[in-house]
Amino acid sequence: MTTPTRRELANAIRFLAIDAVDAAKSGHPGMPMGMADIAEVLWNDYLSHNPGNPGWVDRDRFVLSNGHGSMLQYALLHLAGYDLPIEELKNFRQLHSRTAGHPERHETPGVETTTGPLGQGLANAVGFALAERLLAQRFNRDGHTVVDHRTWVLLGDGCLMEGISHEVASLAGTLGLGKLVALWDDNRISIDGNTAGWFTDDTPARFEAYGWRVIRDVDGHDSEAVKAALDDALSQASKPTLVCCRTTIGFGSPNRAGKESSHGAPLGKDESEATRAALGWTHGPFEVPEAIRDAWRATDAGAAREAEWTERFEAYRAAHPDLAAEFERRTQGALPETFVADADAFIATLQDDGPTIASRKASQMSIEAFAPLLPELIGGSADLAHSNLTLWKGSTSAASTDANANYVYYGVREFGMSAIANGLALHGGFIPFDATFLVFSDYARNAVRMSALIPAHAIHVYTHDSIGLGEDGPTHQPVEHLASLRYIPNNDVWRPCDAVESAVAWKSAILRKDGPSCLVFSRQNLTHQPRDAAQVAAIARGGYVLKDSVGTPEIILIATGSEVGLATQAAEQLGDGVRVVSMPSSDVFDRQDAAYRESVLPHAVRKRVAVEAGVTGFWRAYVGLDGAVIGIDSFGASAPADKLYVHFGITVEAIVEAAKAL
Amino acid sequence: MTTPTRRELANAIRFLAIDAVDAAKSGHPGMPMGMADIAEVLWNDYLSHNPGNPGWVDRDRFVLSNGHGSMLQYALLHLAGYDLPIEELKNFRQLHSRTAGHPERHETPGVETTTGPLGQGLANAVGFALAERLLAQRFNRDGHTVVDHRTWVLLGDGCLMEGISHEVASLAGTLGLGKLVALWDDNRISIDGNTAGWFTDDTPARFEAYGWRVIRDVDGHDSEAVKAALDDALSQASKPTLVCCRTTIGFGSPNRAGKESSHGAPLGKDESEATRAALGWTHGPFEVPEAIRDAWRATDAGAAREAEWTERFEAYRAAHPDLAAEFERRTQGALPETFVADADAFIATLQDDGPTIASRKASQMSIEAFAPLLPELIGGSADLAHSNLTLWKGSTSAASTDANANYVYYGVREFGMSAIANGLALHGGFIPFDATFLVFSDYARNAVRMSALIPAHAIHVYTHDSIGLGEDGPTHQPVEHLASLRYIPNNDVWRPCDAVESAVAWKSAILRKDGPSCLVFSRQNLTHQPRDAAQVAAIARGGYVLKDSVGTPEIILIATGSEVGLATQAAEQLGDGVRVVSMPSSDVFDRQDAAYRESVLPHAVRKRVAVEAGVTGFWRAYVGLDGAVIGIDSFGASAPADKLYVHFGITVEAIVEAAKAL
Repeated sequence: MTTPTRRELANAIRFLAIDAVDAAKSGHPGMPMGMADIAEVLWNDYLSHNPGNPGWVDRDRFVLSNGHGSMLQYALLHLAGYDLPIEELKNFRQLHSRTAGHPERHETPGVETTTGPLGQGLANAVGFALAERLLAQRFNRDGHTVVDHRTWVLLGDGCLMEGISHEVASLAGTLGLGKLVALWDDNRISIDGNTAGWFTDDTPARFEAYGWRVIRDVDGHDSEAVKAALDDALSQASKPTLVCCRTTIGFGSPNRAGKESSHGAPLGKDESEATRAALGWTHGPFEVPEAIRDAWRATDAGAAREAEWTERFEAYRAAHPDLAAEFERRTQGALPETFVADADAFIATLQDDGPTIASRKASQMSIEAFAPLLPELIGGSADLAHSNLTLWKGSTSAASTDANANYVYYGVREFGMSAIANGLALHGGFIPFDATFLVFSDYARNAVRMSALIPAHAIHVYTHDSIGLGEDGPTHQPVEHLASLRYIPNNDVWRPCDAVESAVAWKSAILRKDGPSCLVFSRQNLTHQPRDAAQVAAIARGGYVLKDSVGTPEIILIATGSEVGLATQAAEQLGDGVRVVSMPSSDVFDRQDAAYRESVLPHAVRKRVAVEAGVTGFWRAYVGLDGAVIGIDSFGASAPADKLYVHFGITVEAIVEAAKAL
Repeated sequence: MTTPTRRELANAIRFLAIDAVDAAKSGHPGMPMGMADIAEVLWNDYLSHNPGNPGWVDRDRFVLSNGHGSMLQYALLHLAGYDLPIEELKNFRQLHSRTAGHPERHETPGVETTTGPLGQGLANAVGFALAERLLAQRFNRDGHTVVDHRTWVLLGDGCLMEGISHEVASLAGTLGLGKLVALWDDNRISIDGNTAGWFTDDTPARFEAYGWRVIRDVDGHDSEAVKAALDDALSQASKPTLVCCRTTIGFGSPNRAGKESSHGAPLGKDESEATRAALGWTHGPFEVPEAIRDAWRATDAGAAREAEWTERFEAYRAAHPDLAAEFERRTQGALPETFVADADAFIATLQDDGPTIASRKASQMSIEAFAPLLPELIGGSADLAHSNLTLWKGSTSAASTDANANYVYYGVREFGMSAIANGLALHGGFIPFDATFLVFSDYARNAVRMSALIPAHAIHVYTHDSIGLGEDGPTHQPVEHLASLRYIPNNDVWRPCDAVESAVAWKSAILRKDGPSCLVFSRQNLTHQPRDAAQVAAIARGGYVLKDSVGTPEIILIATGSEVGLATQAAEQLGDGVRVVSMPSSDVFDRQDAAYRESVLPHAVRKRVAVEAGVTGFWRAYVGLDGAVIGIDSFGASAPADKLYVHFGITVEAIVEAAKAL
């Protein structure tokens, strides 16, 4: 073979995808076949990366927002020289392989984010691009550009139909994220068929309305046209760019090209052979000729690229040693050495001071205390800053060019916000927190799930956590949300009962690198609870004895958040046999060893009452069939909070009665 | 007072809003003050309604998508003559009032849909407009136009930032819903302040990209300009229209107009008085001069309007008696008299035939059986028709002009889809069902909650209900979703174990008028279960004894869906002392009387094992602290389904072991 043509290079992707999907007997060949020419140009001529080190900090980020085309990404990673041998491609979609049905960051080296839920890859990419810009603002110095990379995202019609694409493209336009380039696989086919029946947007005009630069009418199968478009995209830096690539789904398949039948099913033996014949690919399944492999291999170029950057970084270190050290600390995800001690001192002070305040206010106090220690904290709210209390005195808009820009005014875009936060977290250099009312976690729900699945070290702040928000009424009153968020695997939900627990929740969320935390705060004031030092230390275990019985408990009251105060009052009425357990995080408590859990909730003590202004069913796991739960299983109502608590029977009296009735 | 000016009429709204918010000491005066002039023109010159009969079937639908401005709507309803006396306005946001913080359809006559969660009102309005068009297609005849009304929706910047606005505006443009008119409150203020920092879309261009007609630059405080714009909007009928109204939030308030401080807090005594002075409103709190009341009152005009329509309808009845009867049946929400008997016959046949098929296939068979009986059924899927199996042989695209159009190709727009379905249900004349993968119920989650809260008779179909979906992997495998959906109040979740239970679930969802049902189906085949007639009848109770023990049960196995087959196999291994309870809907089971529940799950029997391929915590409410739960509390993985069941330990053997260990 002579020097391979670009089409031959692209065909290597096509047939790895076809062969892997055929071998797995499931998967999505159509998109890799359609986007292979585009991806080939992007990866071979533009993408700045180092296959030998997927963690190189200044690499370009590549995101496959249309994640069902995972074989495109696996083929690219394999061919470029990442640690993804051909055996993994042969095991596509099999248990314990590194080639899951959709790209999983925690499974596959080189996958920047887990994709598949449509539109979220684009949102993550906006987060990557924002992270890059803010790190550049913070760390680059004259003559020392140590942060300078692009974010590339492939996306399809599905991503563009999803609402989240609106939220994040709009914000990216407002922020002018000039190093973000999106390549649209404009194939006019979605699963139900030709999109003419349900998707007739003038997408280029739509993106121009967001303030994007749009490059129209690019033939996605003409490598030179793609190259010209990408050159064009790089010619300016003030706006994100959408490159509109006309493609044919299932390109090369004689009987399925341009049809939805190529989208989500194997071509099968006959059509696979017909496609080989049509594209002149004479090689067997999973065979890639050495000349084509040589042309794809990016390991040497990647190593050289990183070496060049490392040299520049060492010059930076020489000129700005403190900045360089801080850059390394942040991008490696290390906390300042004194953070834990500083946090504990703050917590101890709060225990001494004993403020009776809303936990959302306590949250803001925690942010005020911790944010000056952690420049990597990047906050934000979906247009509820003064309700969520997410601003602190050092907050500076991320839309500014300030070196300390650390706060995103996300607008009313809950889903986009949380998915962007995932991108910020995955990029490195930041610990994002975002915020909305707890009830509107619904809007962001799958992004919170993705925080947990990817996993991403994101902190989701939710205030106005119950009927305690009062007059705004049932549309704004969460009832099922605490339980629902707790059931997301690998998600830590905290609902603190006072300022001290609020600070511990924040500390825990900051320390927890391997997943998200949801911090749930009240609108209304919460009474400070007395604790000794051991109890303060035990908060971090998720559940602990806040007020103990004399001797073995006869009755255990378990409560969270605003209901802990009710439980302690009830305990006083009930007498010495009552233990009160505060359970700010059942997720964390459930991870404790059995001995600790038994020490808090002895298996033999069955007279248990759980109290939480939310659905009761969740608490049956802690009180069993013989206990009682005081909560709310209907929607709330519009009235002042104190009246609602009485109306729905979440009162000291109700707890006392329930306990006595056991 | 002489004939009031339009400004005076609008000021009546402003001060009712100001006074009510001041009295409640909470609420949102800024929007009603800003939109009063627009609303006055719309209600007095355009809106076709009858305050004396909020249920008049051919009324225009009015939707307040920016629902925090609820006092605008309450003032309008009050002034126009709906059953909303001034005492209710004085009790704004109080317990048991009909004036909740956000408009609640179930509380207030004349409120077409519950709003507050931003963007969803617009989506509901798209559903209203689509319902109107489809009913017109179905029922109007030459010379007999009995369906002919418009849908008007007010919306703010918040609605436009939300992703759902993209989804539904895009679809409305594709469908060309020409009787939908949206009025945008373009005040450039959201809660965090001036939107220049986070919302810089060229919104008119964006909507033109969706195929809307856009009327730009309307001065929202110039009644004649608004009137001209609305005349213009009505001058064509092929596209939905966006009227862009420039307004000042808090209009009239000397110190808060144009500022976010007017958005969500009472003006207070001083500013309220200053506003009275500024606008020349000399009347006390809640006082509206009689001349202004007279000018607003729309009861006589409304009654005449309906009478004229009734006359037309009677002429229609004379010419087309069957159509008229069918129109009345459908718009009154009555099912055909034979429906229950027909459904039961179908269910009995299924029990006899005993097909072993995927429950998604059984769902499609139910649709095939029921849809011909129920022309009000309007289906759809978020671009997964051939996976969800929502198409039946009578499906006809709602984008067509066919009289029987009954299927919406929603595109990849889960949230928009479910919120549009809510609008279809609320309009009357339709029972909508929509569909996606269970995991993507997340994307639609708050719309499902709204189905339950409003309530709306919507049916949400979710297929691919567990790790049983296999190779697509954890992004596509629901784990926490069953429990999370069950916890939404007033939401019935069904997860049938075979074709018979699937048909009963469909029947129950169709019969259930006072709220939504989520029907959850498998991708993989499920074994048919034997039942006698009493057991078939008991399915509708949500949980029942599928296979009983000999004598009092020693052990009870509780299972749902695909795990019922595992439970019955385990029971055979465990011997005569084991009862198997199939629990397709715990929501419905929990509503049964105590005696029935005791008969199925005797309190004294504590050796219980629950089996469901989802989070285990939920089932503790049924097995207590002493039982066992076989389920999955982590994310899934990408592999063939049978391998995943073994990998995650959801097997007959695991059930047997767990039961023996009790």
